[in-house]
Amino acid sequence: MTAVGVTGATGTMGRAVLDTAAGRDDTTVAFATNRDPAAEHVAGHELRPAVDFPDLLATHAPDVVVDFTGPESAVEYASACAEADVGFVTGTTGFDEAHRDVLRGVADRVPVLRATNFSRGVHALAEALAETVETLPDYDIELTETHHNRKRDAPSGTATTLLDRIDDASGANHDRTYGREGEQPRDGDEVGVHVRRAGNVRGEHEVLLAGNDEVLTLTHRAESRGVFAAGALDAAVWLAGRDAGWYEFEEVLA
Amino acid sequence: MTAVGVTGATGTMGRAVLDTAAGRDDTTVAFATNRDPAAEHVAGHELRPAVDFPDLLATHAPDVVVDFTGPESAVEYASACAEADVGFVTGTTGFDEAHRDVLRGVADRVPVLRATNFSRGVHALAEALAETVETLPDYDIELTETHHNRKRDAPSGTATTLLDRIDDASGANHDRTYGREGEQPRDGDEVGVHVRRAGNVRGEHEVLLAGNDEVLTLTHRAESRGVFAAGALDAAVWLAGRDAGWYEFEEVLA
Amino acid sequence: MTAVGVTGATGTMGRAVLDTAAGRDDTTVAFATNRDPAAEHVAGHELRPAVDFPDLLATHAPDVVVDFTGPESAVEYASACAEADVGFVTGTTGFDEAHRDVLRGVADRVPVLRATNFSRGVHALAEALAETVETLPDYDIELTETHHNRKRDAPSGTATTLLDRIDDASGANHDRTYGREGEQPRDGDEVGVHVRRAGNVRGEHEVLLAGNDEVLTLTHRAESRGVFAAGALDAAVWLAGRDAGWYEFEEVLA
Amino acid sequence: MTAVGVTGATGTMGRAVLDTAAGRDDTTVAFATNRDPAAEHVAGHELRPAVDFPDLLATHAPDVVVDFTGPESAVEYASACAEADVGFVTGTTGFDEAHRDVLRGVADRVPVLRATNFSRGVHALAEALAETVETLPDYDIELTETHHNRKRDAPSGTATTLLDRIDDASGANHDRTYGREGEQPRDGDEVGVHVRRAGNVRGEHEVLLAGNDEVLTLTHRAESRGVFAAGALDAAVWLAGRDAGWYEFEEVLA
Repeated sequence: MTAVGVTGATGTMGRAVLDTAAGRDDTTVAFATNRDPAAEHVAGHELRPAVDFPDLLATHAPDVVVDFTGPESAVEYASACAEADVGFVTGTTGFDEAHRDVLRGVADRVPVLRATNFSRGVHALAEALAETVETLPDYDIELTETHHNRKRDAPSGTATTLLDRIDDASGANHDRTYGREGEQPRDGDEVGVHVRRAGNVRGEHEVLLAGNDEVLTLTHRAESRGVFAAGALDAAVWLAGRDAGWYEFEEVLA
Repeated sequence: MTAVGVTGATGTMGRAVLDTAAGRDDTTVAFATNRDPAAEHVAGHELRPAVDFPDLLATHAPDVVVDFTGPESAVEYASACAEADVGFVTGTTGFDEAHRDVLRGVADRVPVLRATNFSRGVHALAEALAETVETLPDYDIELTETHHNRKRDAPSGTATTLLDRIDDASGANHDRTYGREGEQPRDGDEVGVHVRRAGNVRGEHEVLLAGNDEVLTLTHRAESRGVFAAGALDAAVWLAGRDAGWYEFEEVLA
Repeated sequence: MTAVGVTGATGTMGRAVLDTAAGRDDTTVAFATNRDPAAEHVAGHELRPAVDFPDLLATHAPDVVVDFTGPESAVEYASACAEADVGFVTGTTGFDEAHRDVLRGVADRVPVLRATNFSRGVHALAEALAETVETLPDYDIELTETHHNRKRDAPSGTATTLLDRIDDASGANHDRTYGREGEQPRDGDEVGVHVRRAGNVRGEHEVLLAGNDEVLTLTHRAESRGVFAAGALDAAVWLAGRDAGWYEFEEVLA
Repeated sequence: MTAVGVTGATGTMGRAVLDTAAGRDDTTVAFATNRDPAAEHVAGHELRPAVDFPDLLATHAPDVVVDFTGPESAVEYASACAEADVGFVTGTTGFDEAHRDVLRGVADRVPVLRATNFSRGVHALAEALAETVETLPDYDIELTETHHNRKRDAPSGTATTLLDRIDDASGANHDRTYGREGEQPRDGDEVGVHVRRAGNVRGEHEVLLAGNDEVLTLTHRAESRGVFAAGALDAAVWLAGRDAGWYEFEEVLA
């Protein structure tokens, strides 16, 4: 049984983690925090103010913290985990280089796992994509991702991961073209990146490869946020008790 | 039997018009021109230099000219048609306001039909789209179009037509967002426009509407350029012998 | 405020109706029943045994019953509603002619609304489809629907509704071909119907029309069952207090 | 320069092979045959009656015959090639066990390459599919293929190849369900196979994998038959001068 602390408990993903934890018999919720001090419950858990996070680590002794917040908050929570010797799983996106430096420092002291996407399917897609890019090296590539209309950052962390995999597989640094308008002929070395925001779409990523009078598309669609929450909890269970270090979600799946 | 003059005969669409005309029994090719003076044949027709276009109108007396070229050329050919009392069908895109003024002047003297897309299916899509937008007025809309990697202008003329239909149907002037990158939350009044360029794709347009935990997509795909060539020739047959004026492809279909 | 009785409360849709009702301020849950006599709660409501349904109508006096069960159960509940003068909204599928006769008899005494799909989007799709079929009468049509792997009946009620709309719009009774294998050339008068069952897909319907070297697809995808639950509750609110009769979901949307 | 004999020259693929050969500088057409004795030309080649095929092998001495016909014809042509010591490339589908025995006998005497699909993209798709099936072994799989309305056999040869790859990759013999109608719950061990026939679609294959609240699709679409004709001619060039034996298209691509 792995005891998890959950941050950002009123956020979309925080709620999904608490809901999903309730249905599992290998995890228990040690505490759940949110920024807003107003008393509230999510999935039956009393929310605690985020300012008490360091104290909660001490008093409730979780094995791992599961974090879906923003980059500033995540870095702060991670640092507290390093002090308290608690593992840290984060699906937060939008980190800059300074944030990443802090996280790497945390990973010197406790186990840290960061992923832009906690789904098995996305990782399968990335593998299939890498292989396809190697087989069809001269095909044009365009990536289209679709998320709900409240998502603020573009493109998604998963899209960035897929774009990096395309570069790795092809051994080339493709220019990334975010939108085309006017007289704008395609350059053979570019990858078009198309960010669609609409309704309540959970998350869809499509990579299109075209050449030689044929078109391939590789697509992943999340049907609910539960798939990501489940993956994050799988990661927490897997991370509990490991040595300090930086871990990848692929290791959880292996 | 309608006699057509064909401009831009070595272009992708010019060739398709000549190929398609060969298989029809209601059209005959009066002449075919291209810019390049080098002697050449397309689909069995000897190409004539474009500079002779006014003379060819006089000597070969087509009923209608079918033009898929560039805006400068198209305007020049149209003006010559006005002088020679020959109808003018054009699928050229990229006209600016000055070009359009010239074309309207031509339409005072001869019948002119301009369309961004000569397919029945695209027009059916536009009708279905207008109705859907009226029924679901508060849904977010994103348009994605995909064409071959040699297409220079973005978005396609058909995409612009569909965007105008969305505005007409909703009674609103949506901002058109060509690409999203970085911190860029969606504005409720915008329509995202995504221009994909890859391989040899003939032409695909997809409109996505999302809201209320559901997603609709309306998509059109051309399987070959023959569909556009056939529509342009349908338009030429329909236009032959009509009064001077500005005509729409919808009238051909009605 | 409309008081609703909910049948099939432990079913997928029954649960979704109870969850959705909790978040609305225009509905209240009068009671919730299930077949299984074991005590249980769903979304905070104590479940009552289905055998007590007639008594519950008398003691809890709902305005409308919302039913997602099976055809036998639905007919039984509807008959009890007729006796108790309570409106009846049902999304149950699989009714045969005898069941429909009973429901029509119920509609002589109380307001009844039956729909195979309670989403605005599906109704928009059906309208767009009808218009497209009229515009492209000679195009081949294939319908593909995808649902989760626990769905027992094929095709979905929504698919059947769309197929009926295709026949209405074209003025033809198309043969419906459920699967092709071996030497099986296409007949111009048939519509292919393809039933995909996989994973936890909420529900997707795609109609493909092809001819003349072009392809159109009209697609609807539900992102969650909440969209159907919300529509059923909209229907209940709309139905409350109306005269006896048979009503269509389109009337709710108008 | 490889000299090819082309059978089934008036068929869709035969014409595409002759058209494509005209644009290449590594192949020349030795002769082209068709069943129908009426004199005719395709792509500038005079057609010869199929009954003269053995004589044509002797008099025109092709390096390789490229065959897209029917199983009976293909077997007859292959046997003549064995006698004349001419290589044989075939994309014909629908062979039964007896046909395959004959072809294997031919391969004892001359080089034979049979493929259900001559596109690089389809082979890339098959590789990506095999890897995905291995990574997500418990996901449900449904295959949907779409071709023009004149295709007689179902499913396509490519679909069968993909289904075999799914079985190989998963180490299981899935039942193949061709259509679902009525009360038909999904069996965990089945793969649904959906054959769509409409308009002039060149060929599309989609494999959907779903589980764990997520959906992956891997799709290939041919934009024209030229992609297959080019692959068949690549195979002919590669096969010319090889030892007798049975070869796979993958070897051509390697």
